[in-house]
Amino acid sequence: MMIDPATLGVTERYKLLVGGIVPRPIAWVSSVSRDGAPNLAPFSFMCGVGSDPMTLLFCPANDADGREKDSLVNASPETGTGEFVVNVVNAALSRAMAVTAESLPRGESEWSLAGLEMAPSAVVKPARVLGAPVAYECLTHEVVRLNPGVPSGGNIVIGRVVSVFVDDAVVDGRYRIDPAALDAVGRMAGLTYCTTRDRFDLPWGRDAMEETP
Amino acid sequence: MMIDPATLGVTERYKLLVGGIVPRPIAWVSSVSRDGAPNLAPFSFMCGVGSDPMTLLFCPANDADGREKDSLVNASPETGTGEFVVNVVNAALSRAMAVTAESLPRGESEWSLAGLEMAPSAVVKPARVLGAPVAYECLTHEVVRLNPGVPSGGNIVIGRVVSVFVDDAVVDGRYRIDPAALDAVGRMAGLTYCTTRDRFDLPWGRDAMEETP
Repeated sequence: MMIDPATLGVTERYKLLVGGIVPRPIAWVSSVSRDGAPNLAPFSFMCGVGSDPMTLLFCPANDADGREKDSLVNASPETGTGEFVVNVVNAALSRAMAVTAESLPRGESEWSLAGLEMAPSAVVKPARVLGAPVAYECLTHEVVRLNPGVPSGGNIVIGRVVSVFVDDAVVDGRYRIDPAALDAVGRMAGLTYCTTRDRFDLPWGRDAMEETP
Repeated sequence: MMIDPATLGVTERYKLLVGGIVPRPIAWVSSVSRDGAPNLAPFSFMCGVGSDPMTLLFCPANDADGREKDSLVNASPETGTGEFVVNVVNAALSRAMAVTAESLPRGESEWSLAGLEMAPSAVVKPARVLGAPVAYECLTHEVVRLNPGVPSGGNIVIGRVVSVFVDDAVVDGRYRIDPAALDAVGRMAGLTYCTTRDRFDLPWGRDAMEETP
């Protein structure tokens, strides 16, 4: 079927985005407000951008009332501290990650709700999650607000990576991360996730062409 | 270990990005140049942005010489046609997708190299990949160039989704896409991919808290 998204409601458009763009890596974003309140929340609209400088982004959409999420308010240099940490979620931490999706009133902490411990970051104020196998400390380079005030409107937070934590158990001397040791989980639609345990290799470019029998 | 990316080369920074941000969905981007030449290439730095309007992005980094990739030149309204299609890659198409990663001289087509057929799009000029289970037709809303001319510098192509193709076999009447029928593959580092066949569900927020025995 061919669907004109303009004929759909926001919920249906969301389903088509999260059902088709899979599997999604999870940015478990740690941030701190101007008055020092820590926040931790998962976002699956996220990706790397480039390696020079080392850059990534995450997309915290406005909530159903058109308000900006705490992670965006905190990561924005205009309204927050301009810093954030992207923690990588492995299978062992996936349940705690899901707990931190809870919307809490100001002053209550996702960290304590999920029973998580903070580990100090090297450069930025927000802590990384103790036990997360990889964490990217970021300074916010730019925030692109595509539809300010609109419910479910998109925002893009672009971060320069200024420090990387990697658990020694998942990396080799050439900065290659072992996918089996990392054991990251990906986001699917609804309440569903996937592991990264069912892997396969493919050659690159012409080398991937099937042999003629 | 704690790593200052400024002390690393571009290759090592890239390894830390693609090794930790996993699993990544694959945007198999179809585009057309101003003189009508079709291009097809996979990008795993991509994500959804928001549902109102329905928006996604992909990040075609500059090549090793600092030049913009054809997909970026074509998708840019300033240098190309300002349109592109993001095709979803399932396991059956993964080898053909890998073939289209080949860098071809101008005038040669990744479509024919990989033996792929074009299906007409509803709104935009670039074709979708026949057989791809989902395809998002996009008008380029904005291109963010973070480091023009710099090798491996990042670029962000933000697209408004103006039409969605979904294979009837993977979607229900409420626009929910069945992950098993979709059978999407994700990108890991190196030559490695993962399937989305090993899935699990988690409750949301407080509901995900472990029961006390």
